[in-house]
Amino acid sequence: MDRIFNFSAGPAILPAEVLQQARGEMLDWHGSSMSVMEMSHRGLEFMSIAEKVESDLRELASIPVNYKILFLSGGASSQFAMVPMNLLRGKKSADYINTGEWSQKAIKEAKKYCTVNIAASSENENFSCAPTQDRWMLDPAAAYVHYTPNETIGGVEFNWVPDVDAQVPLVSDMSSSILSRPLDVARFGLIYAGAQKNMGPAGLTIVIVREDLLGVTLPGTPTMFDYKIHADNDSMYNTPPTYAMYIMGLVLEWLKRNGGLIAMEKVNIAKAKLLYDLLDASDFYHCPVVESDRSRMNVPFTLKNPSLDGTFLQQSQARGLIQLKGHRSVGGMRASIYNAMPIEGVARLVEFMQEFEINHA
Amino acid sequence: MDRIFNFSAGPAILPAEVLQQARGEMLDWHGSSMSVMEMSHRGLEFMSIAEKVESDLRELASIPVNYKILFLSGGASSQFAMVPMNLLRGKKSADYINTGEWSQKAIKEAKKYCTVNIAASSENENFSCAPTQDRWMLDPAAAYVHYTPNETIGGVEFNWVPDVDAQVPLVSDMSSSILSRPLDVARFGLIYAGAQKNMGPAGLTIVIVREDLLGVTLPGTPTMFDYKIHADNDSMYNTPPTYAMYIMGLVLEWLKRNGGLIAMEKVNIAKAKLLYDLLDASDFYHCPVVESDRSRMNVPFTLKNPSLDGTFLQQSQARGLIQLKGHRSVGGMRASIYNAMPIEGVARLVEFMQEFEINHA
Repeated sequence: MDRIFNFSAGPAILPAEVLQQARGEMLDWHGSSMSVMEMSHRGLEFMSIAEKVESDLRELASIPVNYKILFLSGGASSQFAMVPMNLLRGKKSADYINTGEWSQKAIKEAKKYCTVNIAASSENENFSCAPTQDRWMLDPAAAYVHYTPNETIGGVEFNWVPDVDAQVPLVSDMSSSILSRPLDVARFGLIYAGAQKNMGPAGLTIVIVREDLLGVTLPGTPTMFDYKIHADNDSMYNTPPTYAMYIMGLVLEWLKRNGGLIAMEKVNIAKAKLLYDLLDASDFYHCPVVESDRSRMNVPFTLKNPSLDGTFLQQSQARGLIQLKGHRSVGGMRASIYNAMPIEGVARLVEFMQEFEINHA
Repeated sequence: MDRIFNFSAGPAILPAEVLQQARGEMLDWHGSSMSVMEMSHRGLEFMSIAEKVESDLRELASIPVNYKILFLSGGASSQFAMVPMNLLRGKKSADYINTGEWSQKAIKEAKKYCTVNIAASSENENFSCAPTQDRWMLDPAAAYVHYTPNETIGGVEFNWVPDVDAQVPLVSDMSSSILSRPLDVARFGLIYAGAQKNMGPAGLTIVIVREDLLGVTLPGTPTMFDYKIHADNDSMYNTPPTYAMYIMGLVLEWLKRNGGLIAMEKVNIAKAKLLYDLLDASDFYHCPVVESDRSRMNVPFTLKNPSLDGTFLQQSQARGLIQLKGHRSVGGMRASIYNAMPIEGVARLVEFMQEFEINHA
């Protein structure tokens, strides 16, 4: 059967080349006669894989030497607690920007550990935009500022990096946008991202953190939630998710072969434009997000007539365009078009949507 | 190249059939045109995989209906904190049995959250045995009793399940022995195990817990460390390590095809006997563990003349017998012979060791 086009929000589509390589190496990685899954994480073979993943990520995202890269498990959901547990460093409050579901999850968890100051929110706009910086009420005494540059569910993306006081680290949940465009790491204190959207399989979480922020944790912080423990042990304090790291390594090699983040951004802009142009030209479809803040990765849209939703999903699936159902909290449709989604997939979706409109308008 | 015999302590050897099946399904699982890595964890395809893994594990290990099975990430190292955070339930102390490195890690972490009573220890015997129950000084007021039935590094295994007060749950770190023999789950309050030794790839941790123990956590417990959150959400509170769950499912199917835990125990006894018989018959090799408490999974041994260690490792590797080096904390050799190690692998190792002894005695 032909490969289909998978618009899942995550776990998500991976480059076919990556899967083909993983298949080829499944029982024998580079003549080792072992699957990567069978390798001791402290053996020479896996150590070489781990070092390559780190150096490729450092190169692709231009990560400065004073930033540690951690390969953790536990998902971004664990980061919602790890961030305050590690970054409060004696302070009592942190600033959070509320732009939707994922911001709110981070906020709720942080409230267990500190006073949360909502420095800006788009709740009154039904989370349809990214609040511009003139609306932010930052607290100079905050331990850090946390925001979600791309809301996977709402489809709202910051197309700019916030300016914050140099003394207050900027913390960013990049789960659904990391590696989709060039990144100026030095503007951040800490970046975290689950791998299962733009980098690899579920079960691996990347943390990029400025070294000087490490070393002070809240009393009662589990050892496994202490960034410094992982940093000091090169992410081998315990057994890391080895196979997921290997697949991420293949994805990074694929990114490098395809021009890195600059080339990726160009394609991502083109892909998003195809879809948003259709949505804007149509009265049949509607995108709830304001034009300036539309996500390049997750495109939510509704049908004017929601009684057609079921037919839309059925017919798109029959064409091999799958996982288009919107998140259960918002309904409608959502097309996630991460790096690994080829432009052909988006073109096929646009073509289907145009036909569907003609047939049902 | 021939497959080799991999004696790694974990991540460890997997059944070749499992890897072959994973290879065959890498780009197209059951006609879905997707890799399992690409599936939404909430889609029908992955939900069916997750349900099958759970029901197969429940069947294989005869897990009663009043026990929840959780599929988590974070490794057994996270359990060292999660156990006290969830099971203290208002009590102030817990009993721990100290039998070596992994017990000690659990003890050290628990001390962050409660008073730890070392109810028994084999430290004075240099961790060469499992302290018999008549030596245990259990505290009836303890929140739970924690022990490590198989010490992966020391090679000490309990061949019996401790008797504890019915009101005090027994907690067991089964990372390196789960599924190696039949299991009487009802004797335990909670069992946890990293998957990467006897069940699948790294990055997945199984928790089997009696339902009535859930619901009370220490203040400050991260949401992701709350068993009840995961139980109430069928391990889908956040994205679980989906591909590792899938591989574990293939391992469970392999176990079922091969007679389940009763058959597995027979082979494991035979494999261990081959190796221990050689060690006992020889003055050239030495096993530091008392006969009654020797692990069926991890067989540590030393050469009388440690200056031959390097040669032993070199020559065994040249024969395709790899990862035999002992843990850096104890030195010498260690052969981990989990379920997936065929008896031929152990026979090949024994043959090599006999030849090596003849050539170097």
